[in-house]
Amino acid sequence: MSAKENRSIALVVQSGTLDRLMSALILASTAVAMNMEANLYFTFWGLNMLVKGAMDKAGLPATYKNFEEQMRRRMAEMKYPSPHEMLKSIYATGKLRIYACSPTMGIFGIKKEDLIPEVTDIVGAATFLEIAAKAELTLFI
Amino acid sequence: MSAKENRSIALVVQSGTLDRLMSALILASTAVAMNMEANLYFTFWGLNMLVKGAMDKAGLPATYKNFEEQMRRRMAEMKYPSPHEMLKSIYATGKLRIYACSPTMGIFGIKKEDLIPEVTDIVGAATFLEIAAKAELTLFI
Amino acid sequence: MSAKENRSIALVVQSGTLDRLMSALILASTAVAMNMEANLYFTFWGLNMLVKGAMDKAGLPATYKNFEEQMRRRMAEMKYPSPHEMLKSIYATGKLRIYACSPTMGIFGIKKEDLIPEVTDIVGAATFLEIAAKAELTLFI
Repeated sequence: MSAKENRSIALVVQSGTLDRLMSALILASTAVAMNMEANLYFTFWGLNMLVKGAMDKAGLPATYKNFEEQMRRRMAEMKYPSPHEMLKSIYATGKLRIYACSPTMGIFGIKKEDLIPEVTDIVGAATFLEIAAKAELTLFI
Repeated sequence: MSAKENRSIALVVQSGTLDRLMSALILASTAVAMNMEANLYFTFWGLNMLVKGAMDKAGLPATYKNFEEQMRRRMAEMKYPSPHEMLKSIYATGKLRIYACSPTMGIFGIKKEDLIPEVTDIVGAATFLEIAAKAELTLFI
Repeated sequence: MSAKENRSIALVVQSGTLDRLMSALILASTAVAMNMEANLYFTFWGLNMLVKGAMDKAGLPATYKNFEEQMRRRMAEMKYPSPHEMLKSIYATGKLRIYACSPTMGIFGIKKEDLIPEVTDIVGAATFLEIAAKAELTLFI
């Protein structure tokens, strides 16, 4: 395997809103298209979006709430896939790893069987730090 | 050109609020003063601030809204330049690149002629990932 | 000193809310447990949390406000230390550096004597950029 095939990005998805989820998914989608691996670590409000059925209900943050209807309408007109559909198509490339933050699961009382099947593993911050140390790009979203 | 002259930072400006815009501009201003290049990729609410006349109207997020009057008054007392004036003075160094996110322009129906003249280019996330891979510091703001 | 002992992370804490403060402290705590140095640069709303007595009063952002009671109750049940207690125990390892952003202190009229004693230094963005350039992981929280 060449060095190029090992290139990766590592994103912490802490937010639970549609705009930031879209930012994370667009970056992940772009990374895998460039033959990089995309590692997404979902924590806090982000982890809550990994609960079955939750991701496609994500709305906008309080600050931008009055843009929500316009944004949804435009994304529908532009035939954007839903966030979960988008995640599934990135996942199908085999280059996406979805990590669920274990301490957050305790705080919110979320169990493994509550999560979408695309979750690769339930891990703590130490695992994320090791993954991030090898990544070319790390962002907190 | 020496390796040192090529040092750069790459910031994603996703937020559309005054506090985070100021964070991005202060980091960019500091980077160029240290002879680094500053690459700012404006997306979502950040992209909306690149529309002519919008940047200097940016307010605080919902969580901190009640600090807005105090913050504006103090920044006026301290003779802070407006965000757009600050951006222009960083731009004048020749070390600032402003990128507008093309998918966001579609979602919000923003056209090239709507944007401030300091925009270097309208690009997608792949271009940002290439720029970020070479940067010493990448942050999502 | 081996290269391994010099590994570090650099986090900008711009937010002043409990969820993002917890994210920063959990990452810092994990980093020092892995024998890395943790550098936290507090700016804007984050800087306001370094004022004596403020950190343990931090609440949730507007978007997630209705989760606040549940989150506090669960963290109490799980015997989580308060944020300041958590910061102190990381600080006791000798591997945590807390930096207060000097321009923010001017904007908010905060003085050195107002800050908690764990603050290592009051510095500008240039010092942070130098620290971040050496870090394995940099995030804007």
